[in-house]
Amino acid sequence: MRVVTVGVGLLGDAIEAQAVGVHRVDWRPPMPGTETDLATLALDPLRAQADARAVQAVIDTTAVLVDVLPAAEALGLERGRFLHAGPPLTWERASGPMRGALMGAAVLEGLVEHPDDAPALFESGAATMEPCHHNDAVGPMAGVVAPSMWMFVLEDPATGRRTHCTLNEGLGKVLRYGAYSPEVLARLRWMGDVLGPLLQGAVRAVRDEQGPVDVTGVLTQMLQMGDEAHNRNRAGTLMLLRDLAPALVAGVERGSSAADVADVLRFVGGNDHFFLNLAMPACKLALDAARGTEGSAMVVAMARNGTDFGIQVAGTGDEWFTGPAQVADGLFLGDYGPDDANPDIGDSAITETAGIGGFAMATAPAIVRLVGGSVPDALATTRRMHEITLAEHTRWAVPVLDFQGTPTGIDVTRVCRTGVLPQINTGMAGRVAGTGQVGAGLVTPPAEVFPAALARLAELSRAREGRG
Amino acid sequence: MRVVTVGVGLLGDAIEAQAVGVHRVDWRPPMPGTETDLATLALDPLRAQADARAVQAVIDTTAVLVDVLPAAEALGLERGRFLHAGPPLTWERASGPMRGALMGAAVLEGLVEHPDDAPALFESGAATMEPCHHNDAVGPMAGVVAPSMWMFVLEDPATGRRTHCTLNEGLGKVLRYGAYSPEVLARLRWMGDVLGPLLQGAVRAVRDEQGPVDVTGVLTQMLQMGDEAHNRNRAGTLMLLRDLAPALVAGVERGSSAADVADVLRFVGGNDHFFLNLAMPACKLALDAARGTEGSAMVVAMARNGTDFGIQVAGTGDEWFTGPAQVADGLFLGDYGPDDANPDIGDSAITETAGIGGFAMATAPAIVRLVGGSVPDALATTRRMHEITLAEHTRWAVPVLDFQGTPTGIDVTRVCRTGVLPQINTGMAGRVAGTGQVGAGLVTPPAEVFPAALARLAELSRAREGRG
Repeated sequence: MRVVTVGVGLLGDAIEAQAVGVHRVDWRPPMPGTETDLATLALDPLRAQADARAVQAVIDTTAVLVDVLPAAEALGLERGRFLHAGPPLTWERASGPMRGALMGAAVLEGLVEHPDDAPALFESGAATMEPCHHNDAVGPMAGVVAPSMWMFVLEDPATGRRTHCTLNEGLGKVLRYGAYSPEVLARLRWMGDVLGPLLQGAVRAVRDEQGPVDVTGVLTQMLQMGDEAHNRNRAGTLMLLRDLAPALVAGVERGSSAADVADVLRFVGGNDHFFLNLAMPACKLALDAARGTEGSAMVVAMARNGTDFGIQVAGTGDEWFTGPAQVADGLFLGDYGPDDANPDIGDSAITETAGIGGFAMATAPAIVRLVGGSVPDALATTRRMHEITLAEHTRWAVPVLDFQGTPTGIDVTRVCRTGVLPQINTGMAGRVAGTGQVGAGLVTPPAEVFPAALARLAELSRAREGRG
Repeated sequence: MRVVTVGVGLLGDAIEAQAVGVHRVDWRPPMPGTETDLATLALDPLRAQADARAVQAVIDTTAVLVDVLPAAEALGLERGRFLHAGPPLTWERASGPMRGALMGAAVLEGLVEHPDDAPALFESGAATMEPCHHNDAVGPMAGVVAPSMWMFVLEDPATGRRTHCTLNEGLGKVLRYGAYSPEVLARLRWMGDVLGPLLQGAVRAVRDEQGPVDVTGVLTQMLQMGDEAHNRNRAGTLMLLRDLAPALVAGVERGSSAADVADVLRFVGGNDHFFLNLAMPACKLALDAARGTEGSAMVVAMARNGTDFGIQVAGTGDEWFTGPAQVADGLFLGDYGPDDANPDIGDSAITETAGIGGFAMATAPAIVRLVGGSVPDALATTRRMHEITLAEHTRWAVPVLDFQGTPTGIDVTRVCRTGVLPQINTGMAGRVAGTGQVGAGLVTPPAEVFPAALARLAELSRAREGRG
């Protein structure tokens, strides 16, 4: 007798109890309404090779740290222009933490004296906002970049392509979580006056004397040291400190103040998240190598602006597929609770898009103490992400999974076929402008962005085959 | 029908195949000849409480870094006296790497001009050698301490007790692996002239301005960052660098040379093993808290001198139980092979004695690339060590085992009852004096030291009970 049963496991259990052999298959129905588009893409003659090329381009890209520059210089960002995380957004639709960060940045730039005067600037168009992702940059949380902020400059040595990210401020009351109190602005001014210039000197000295810091290589090591490079960046930060400290000290001989250098060492060493702002642009640099790969269904960006969650796909150019950003499920700081949390925000999901962050939770089990969940969940998450990705990353191995590569290259068709959504670790910003961080947790994209991207891929496929 | 079967699993398999329920017990016979002594200790009225007190004393002890001093000052070590790793040893019985290290140290001290002239000093008694463990110190590999060598000084804040260890030289051709070439001695002289004094300034400044570096706390963090604190000390070294770098730089304002400070940062940052020499004395400080606990069968030291492997037990005072040191099984550097390796050497097994190192391999799976074995072996080793230990360490948790504490406090009776031997990760020194490191691997103590210690414990127990 053979029985084929679909759905819950009860019937299987009952048959097994009667000593009939049961072969269990982890099959899930595709997302509703995607069957036709999945069939179209299954028959697309470009796709297999396009996906293989796209994911290999990501794996093959390395990132080195070549400079630290003000955004005005690095990106040509003029006075009055600001960048933000996630897909395009208007002031009117912006959430509390996004508004808070823009208000603080307007004060930092000297456009207004008081944060309360900033909204009028954005409402009138006197100040403008556009995505980091449209400017070769990424930003954590609100991701606000102002012309005076210093940025890490990462380069792909093979092509000279560059990506950028601001310097990490630390945790708690910080601009990227929407806080803009005087202490937040004072820290940002110190970062502009002291931290940026001293890092620039050290980064350039290391680059010129021994070759630039190998950010991709540090990521390889971090993943063997309990970091997943999104919400844990401890080892990465310490390795950056190790790589820059001798050059920072040597700067004293060139005229830097020893007290300032000691402050910089203390600031970086005291901020376990400092390396996040190198991990993110390294991931963007790798994923951008696959942008515009015709026929590929691989995701090249996942990003949130606090209102919308958007993805971009290799085979659909720079189009965003968006849905409402979700509130993360996790652990809260102090007395904060779920009602205090803003929906998901930040470009930091670029780490998951590249195969680390939530996708590499198995290598950072201690992170469950920060974002919630259990150690078995963390191990299961990495295994589950292999179901929706194209490859195992050959540079990024998870020792406890016998050095298996991290799941890399989210495939829109696999997400639609299995209903398994990418798992993202994230910080949670307070809903109200000015609050700062309220917690950290786990979140997924709104499911509908994947069928939307799939539909567009199928439309392009049919057009290519003359069936559109 | 009920069947009780002892031995290989075949009969159990056969019965199971006939649908009879089988309950498998992982029972092993005790070590031969230990039955009577095990029975004596099982009835000892002191033992349960003594063991509980002993292991709790280990867990409760914390270590902070209070100073860096030359051995002459820290230990009162006079010219012509040298310390070495492991149980007591004479020059005549010393192995190649032990002799090589002592020869190099004699040159460093200016007792002889050429290493070849050193043996006569030790043969004649003009130079003497005694164990580190008899002098509140521990040393990795040959563990040779000379009066001019600078040492970390660790203190238990609760009691003021102190332990000491030299500064780590790095890998390859280094004194502790028995090398004594001019480059080895030049490095040691730089460590004495520059590294020691600058570290002293920084350690004292940190101690006085913000409280001493919490070595036990760094160990807690390391175990969540892929280190097991014996053969992987990467994260620990980086955290030490983080904690000392600002004070090192501030030293430039007090007159240190910025170039020297940069060299120190480069030396420490370039030596992933630097923290080992803090982990070891922290473990000794903790275990020494249990020394002399009457009635306890807990091991307080495991140490090797390259010829003998010795253990000391809480309930047997300072007596050593020794057997021949084994050759490790592992991976070799370059063209070296098993014939090039010296038997096991070094006080570093103090880490396993305290519940880390080989006992914490589950938290450092990447180490199998250095010492051999597989990731499942690493996980299984930590689980197996729980069978022979008294407690789970409440400060030292293994995230991937759901934050279970590391197996701490080796119980001589459990080792004898199960035949499970402690698992040690170790470096391998070249057999021939002057060679240096040839590999790294896994090793166990010679089994006979445990029945010998057990016999002495039983003898003392019978004497206490008036049956001796």
